[in-house]
Amino acid sequence: METPVDLTVGDLHASVDDPALNSMNFLNEVAQHYPDAVSLAAGRPYEEYFDVAALHRWLDRFHRHLVEDQGLGPEQVRRTLLQYGRTKGIVHHLVARNLAVDEGITADPEAVVVTVGCQEGMFLVLRALRTGPRDVLLAVAPTYVGLTGAARLVDLPVRPVAGGPAGVDLADLAEQVRRARAEGLRPRACYVMPDFANPSGISMDTAHRRRLLESAAEAELLLVEDNPYGLFPVGDADRPPTLKALDTERRVVYLGSFAKSVLPGARVGYVLADQRVAAPDGSVGLLADQLAKIKSMVTVNTSPIAQAVIGGRLLEHGCSLAGANTRERAAYARNLRHLLDGLARRFPPDRFPGVSWTAPAGGFFVVVTVPFGVDDALLHRSAQEYGVLWTPMAHFYDDGAVVNALRLSISAVTPAQIDLGLDRLAKLVADEVAALVGGGADWPR
Amino acid sequence: METPVDLTVGDLHASVDDPALNSMNFLNEVAQHYPDAVSLAAGRPYEEYFDVAALHRWLDRFHRHLVEDQGLGPEQVRRTLLQYGRTKGIVHHLVARNLAVDEGITADPEAVVVTVGCQEGMFLVLRALRTGPRDVLLAVAPTYVGLTGAARLVDLPVRPVAGGPAGVDLADLAEQVRRARAEGLRPRACYVMPDFANPSGISMDTAHRRRLLESAAEAELLLVEDNPYGLFPVGDADRPPTLKALDTERRVVYLGSFAKSVLPGARVGYVLADQRVAAPDGSVGLLADQLAKIKSMVTVNTSPIAQAVIGGRLLEHGCSLAGANTRERAAYARNLRHLLDGLARRFPPDRFPGVSWTAPAGGFFVVVTVPFGVDDALLHRSAQEYGVLWTPMAHFYDDGAVVNALRLSISAVTPAQIDLGLDRLAKLVADEVAALVGGGADWPR
Repeated sequence: METPVDLTVGDLHASVDDPALNSMNFLNEVAQHYPDAVSLAAGRPYEEYFDVAALHRWLDRFHRHLVEDQGLGPEQVRRTLLQYGRTKGIVHHLVARNLAVDEGITADPEAVVVTVGCQEGMFLVLRALRTGPRDVLLAVAPTYVGLTGAARLVDLPVRPVAGGPAGVDLADLAEQVRRARAEGLRPRACYVMPDFANPSGISMDTAHRRRLLESAAEAELLLVEDNPYGLFPVGDADRPPTLKALDTERRVVYLGSFAKSVLPGARVGYVLADQRVAAPDGSVGLLADQLAKIKSMVTVNTSPIAQAVIGGRLLEHGCSLAGANTRERAAYARNLRHLLDGLARRFPPDRFPGVSWTAPAGGFFVVVTVPFGVDDALLHRSAQEYGVLWTPMAHFYDDGAVVNALRLSISAVTPAQIDLGLDRLAKLVADEVAALVGGGADWPR
Repeated sequence: METPVDLTVGDLHASVDDPALNSMNFLNEVAQHYPDAVSLAAGRPYEEYFDVAALHRWLDRFHRHLVEDQGLGPEQVRRTLLQYGRTKGIVHHLVARNLAVDEGITADPEAVVVTVGCQEGMFLVLRALRTGPRDVLLAVAPTYVGLTGAARLVDLPVRPVAGGPAGVDLADLAEQVRRARAEGLRPRACYVMPDFANPSGISMDTAHRRRLLESAAEAELLLVEDNPYGLFPVGDADRPPTLKALDTERRVVYLGSFAKSVLPGARVGYVLADQRVAAPDGSVGLLADQLAKIKSMVTVNTSPIAQAVIGGRLLEHGCSLAGANTRERAAYARNLRHLLDGLARRFPPDRFPGVSWTAPAGGFFVVVTVPFGVDDALLHRSAQEYGVLWTPMAHFYDDGAVVNALRLSISAVTPAQIDLGLDRLAKLVADEVAALVGGGADWPR
């Protein structure tokens, strides 16, 4: 029997057929299809310390905050938690305190928009900035696929800026701005992840952050700073300040996430957008308020119940998530060291001359370069025949080219799983290299 | 000191300066500015039965469902509730049961996308349907402002279709489709609220619903059915079936909300999109899956914690929200009767010949027509001088024209507040009419 069809993909917005939107779907499907494969692909946070009972405790803690610190009566409390509410959120003051305590950022709570995860924040910013077909976004490549996907939804082209070893190549940034303007285009902002970037793992040092701010000022360009991994350095050395902490002229729109520092299931993140926006009537307000207008037509407001969960967690630790994540940070550091040691042990340079990897100082991701192309077909084969999942780096570039690299994640695994996954990966790499140099060759041994 | 400015509204997407996006902001600001005014404006649900403690109970109930009905172990439970999760949601099966129990709709759970409130569902559908500048949306006028606002975000023009006494004027629908096509435009869908529409209060009868489906089939047009108020009829008469229940050829995309039937603070709604979509590779999937791809770049997934709250509430009542809302339904019915009686008492036709109002059989809203223009300035004056808030009907039309009507809401007030609000409204109307017929005239007496 013929399957009846009501629409074709061509009847729908082009984004639904775009690699950026299909990428996550594809990776999720592979993971579901091979549930027994070890996943060095998933970038989700460590689960061992997750506790469903904590939800109740955090809800109660925030409830108490409403009563004791804000002086709300029972009717106001239930209205705050259960009704429609403030578009910009109800934990904005706690977010601002968290930014002060953990990041040295002085944030006006009114400049904070609490969003449905960082993803909604990203979407709101891109929707606001894209006014017409001349607008483009710059983004350090390789780029988080959620950024590229959100840009697709608003028909905003993303132009890559070379990342390089320092995290962003400032000469290329200037060149990309120049080139876009020469083409009559308007670069609206440059997206950067200065701390343990996804997927590169690279962090910018403080001097480079300052130079990036200077370059952005020269180019009259906004910076969109995304910082989901900053709390997770391996060592105890001082973390470099965020761009936003160094930003003296409101050049940085800062995206925050609680997915890794509290839990993904609350779907709570935020945008700090303190830029001053002049209205036609001469009044001047905050970019946050313009983003809130857009938000009111996307999700109305972020669930106050979900916000209360995050608020309770923040309150339990004096609004320090660095403090709240001591155990998690130790686990990630242990895993990252274990992965790097394991790579060194399994891929000695004399036997694997074409294999190398990054050595990030924190975060969730390591990029392994190999002497062969890494595509989705290879991932399928890796899952099916070798039992290990990872992410082809091609997913983080927007040009469809094959890339000789893959991303490994350390966040949702145990050291034992890392060992097993690396053993399997080593076998895959050895087999691929052997096939490269001719079947039956004894290199690598 | 001059206020420094970083951007102008003109540097941002046109939606942020659009009346549709500013409308809700304006109404919220007026309400905040006059907290002592009686609000016959707010369409939020009745709060008297809200109970913060129920959050814990519902979370626990859904938790038990995961363990007992789905057989999940502790690790799977915490992963389900606290991690990233299925883009289409985790209460889709309960939504499908609810649709079967309360609405007689047979829904494939896979065709359900659980969204961050109905608003996100609306946004996803419009984003999917808007492919280029030839696309337009039809909507029965007056139209819910959240629909118009979401359309603005994707640059999708909304063309009004006359509502008329039957809920939608089918001749005008055909004419609008014809006219749009003659202009080279592509009407993608018609948005309708067949049950106690916001703001008109009108419900379509069953025969008219069938005719609407036939008209849509003739015009080869999708229908987007929004049904937030269907559960709240005044009497015990059988509710007419939803369009989706009558839809035999997948012509209806159905938007559902739990804001009124459970609570707004969960921000959980859904889209039922069972349309079959052919991909370029020849495979056929559900429109729901295309919407989910878009959702993955807007909010990733709907908070499983918020979904669990709704899921627990559904499970407590065998997935019947009609059953769960017995008290609420009685309160709304009482309030609606009280408002209609109060209008009749205060505006006798002999003394107020130019004043009339709708008499909805349910829902939250009554429209009052008056013999003078009702604009935002009058609302300000009403709030400040008379102490009563309502909504100018002009907010529900997209052409900026002044309308001689206002919307009253019965959902978030007590009968005593209705009396007080109507007393104040009657005074305002009398004064406006007196001003119309010349200061000092003794009509109306």
